[in-house]
Amino acid sequence: MRKKIVIIGGGFGGISAAQEFGDYEADITVIDKTNHHVFQPLLYQVATAALSPADIAAPIRGILNKQKNITVVMDEVISIDRGKREVITKSTKYLFDFLVIAIGSRHSYFGKDEWEKYAPGLKTLNDALFIREKILSSLETAEKMKDPDEVKKYLTFVIVGGGPTGVEMAGAIAEIVKITMMKDFRNINASMTKVCLVEGEARLLLSYPDDLSARAAKDLESLGVEIIFNQRVTDVNDEGVKVGDRFIKTNNIIWAAGNSVSPLLKSLNAELDMAGRVLVNPDLSLKDDPDIFIIGDAAYAKDKDGKMLAGIAPVAMQEGKYVAKIIMEGKDADLREPFKYFDKGTMATIGRAKAVCIIAGFKFTGFFGWLLWCIIHILFLISFRNRFKVMAEWAWYYLSFRHGIRLITGHPNKSK
Amino acid sequence: MRKKIVIIGGGFGGISAAQEFGDYEADITVIDKTNHHVFQPLLYQVATAALSPADIAAPIRGILNKQKNITVVMDEVISIDRGKREVITKSTKYLFDFLVIAIGSRHSYFGKDEWEKYAPGLKTLNDALFIREKILSSLETAEKMKDPDEVKKYLTFVIVGGGPTGVEMAGAIAEIVKITMMKDFRNINASMTKVCLVEGEARLLLSYPDDLSARAAKDLESLGVEIIFNQRVTDVNDEGVKVGDRFIKTNNIIWAAGNSVSPLLKSLNAELDMAGRVLVNPDLSLKDDPDIFIIGDAAYAKDKDGKMLAGIAPVAMQEGKYVAKIIMEGKDADLREPFKYFDKGTMATIGRAKAVCIIAGFKFTGFFGWLLWCIIHILFLISFRNRFKVMAEWAWYYLSFRHGIRLITGHPNKSK
Repeated sequence: MRKKIVIIGGGFGGISAAQEFGDYEADITVIDKTNHHVFQPLLYQVATAALSPADIAAPIRGILNKQKNITVVMDEVISIDRGKREVITKSTKYLFDFLVIAIGSRHSYFGKDEWEKYAPGLKTLNDALFIREKILSSLETAEKMKDPDEVKKYLTFVIVGGGPTGVEMAGAIAEIVKITMMKDFRNINASMTKVCLVEGEARLLLSYPDDLSARAAKDLESLGVEIIFNQRVTDVNDEGVKVGDRFIKTNNIIWAAGNSVSPLLKSLNAELDMAGRVLVNPDLSLKDDPDIFIIGDAAYAKDKDGKMLAGIAPVAMQEGKYVAKIIMEGKDADLREPFKYFDKGTMATIGRAKAVCIIAGFKFTGFFGWLLWCIIHILFLISFRNRFKVMAEWAWYYLSFRHGIRLITGHPNKSK
Repeated sequence: MRKKIVIIGGGFGGISAAQEFGDYEADITVIDKTNHHVFQPLLYQVATAALSPADIAAPIRGILNKQKNITVVMDEVISIDRGKREVITKSTKYLFDFLVIAIGSRHSYFGKDEWEKYAPGLKTLNDALFIREKILSSLETAEKMKDPDEVKKYLTFVIVGGGPTGVEMAGAIAEIVKITMMKDFRNINASMTKVCLVEGEARLLLSYPDDLSARAAKDLESLGVEIIFNQRVTDVNDEGVKVGDRFIKTNNIIWAAGNSVSPLLKSLNAELDMAGRVLVNPDLSLKDDPDIFIIGDAAYAKDKDGKMLAGIAPVAMQEGKYVAKIIMEGKDADLREPFKYFDKGTMATIGRAKAVCIIAGFKFTGFFGWLLWCIIHILFLISFRNRFKVMAEWAWYYLSFRHGIRLITGHPNKSK
């Protein structure tokens, strides 16, 4: 009988695993809550009106449609029954011989989940559209308000978390509200806006070398971003955010701090870390179950020095390929080669023509860093179509200084 | 003192009027509920996953930002006080010397407003996203269902109304569900789908010559569309739609029949027709108020033969320009030249490479008609950016047979 393989999640890890299987003789089912794969590194550009959702997303069915051994299902997984070897979804159940769990993560509010409604995170297309709408609506509201205090509240933007997402969001927002969009308004201007980036430690981009962190901070400050170091958020409400003892009045808080994994993993009855990640063997399988694998943000996996692997796309993709190979080889658990991450580098943009990159040990900054960043991101987009569209959109934006996707569309799920 | 001119609505009529004013010495305010102008003739392509919302929309501020005499406001008009010469919005009031009302229309359910929730219409980007989501979700649901009766319900599509919108929607949906998308599914196929177009009269496209109507019907039938003539919808509920005495079980009803205008016009205390349109003078002003003009779908205006002008983009655009000129000329009402509509033609597409057109009295059909349709629609798009993007998207689609924008994004207004 053909083996049944279930992959939960159509992100970088899940898709890489599915593609690696090629035409392998098995019944493979890929389950995702949404119908599309998202290129998450560019999500902040959707949130800041530079790209359309469809520019960085592709239907999972479309990506995998040539592999006849794969069935794609849009459904939500409720729990995993290890005893019965079943994945239970909202509408049915799927038996498995091998299971690959690649469910990603959400932002963590450190136990204060009530903050989320004022301080949305950025993990899905929905999140990005929500944030885009919030930013654009704030400018519209400020334009027609009379009370200067209220205008200031709507023109203040606070980004929490100085990792790559926080740095890229802060740069992009500063550019919108201080440069590109203000020429279209009559009552508000750049000097009335304020963009703050809050980081709990003493420097940005903790996983980067010191000098690149310093460069990123300098580049952000030259765009007009105020960086608040060594401070944590102590409260969030509809009036604003408390950073240490200082209260910043704002309608626009964006959360880019900490990760937590879906409670779904609890149904595995496996050992989890504080953030809810599953502790895995060197072959990424569950401690006591060699046929269940956890990859990407949901796994607590270590590199050869014992350091935890970061929750970034290249890690998830290499893990996906590795796990598919292990399953196809069919070796016993104790004969499997351990997973090894090959670090090609990391990079983050700051605004329109600056970036910090470290690639194969070499550092790049400024315009050349940004050019590298553009090229590499376009190469890694999943389809030719998206590559072409993003390139066209960036060329347009770079030459025109205009953000193309400035739509407030409201609630698409209501017909009025 | 500078004259105060208020334009309500940023559709074809409102934008044309605003642009026609150029740098005319006046304080012009453009008020719209949304922040964007939409190219409505291509809305059905957003609803059928062929174009992104941003491809056919542009921020009103961006379109008008070079005219320093214009202030754009995103706000909702609640009522118009003719006595005080005030437009009252949700957040404030605007005094006017001249008022241009260009608020468009919504679909009419002939008094059965409860049908709308099952049978959405297509007038805004929100409507289009709602319909796109409904169509794509239906295919996903059908793919995972077991009960053949339920599968059939999700794979049946009923379009109500055989005007241009209904014809274009029926053609595009037939193409999606019968040709382009089915290769990505494993459990459903084209033979299980059904697309019906319901028309109350004996032919489609009533405003077109007989032979073009017949050609459109033939082209639709060759795509697999079942056309039901001479029948009216008698009931709509969550199980389906009743057409005459026949009940069609379906989860997908799209409403493209009849128009009705916003109740806002009632606050004018002017004479309205059955659909809520305002009866206007030959100069498009209100019967007893020469400084208030109604244009586009909201007006009941007549051409020189006494026939009512259709609710289409070219009419609204010509009316917008005309009214701006009248205001700038400043002549008394009885000295104004009446509005004359110059009919350049009409056109509708049927599926991927067919169309029916009548331009300056000449008729075009088939592939050549479709090519003309493509060229003219691209020329009329509002910005270079949109022209380029739509052309690229169409080229991609024509060559690849793939719909690019297949995203189910859910509720962007909730962060989860």
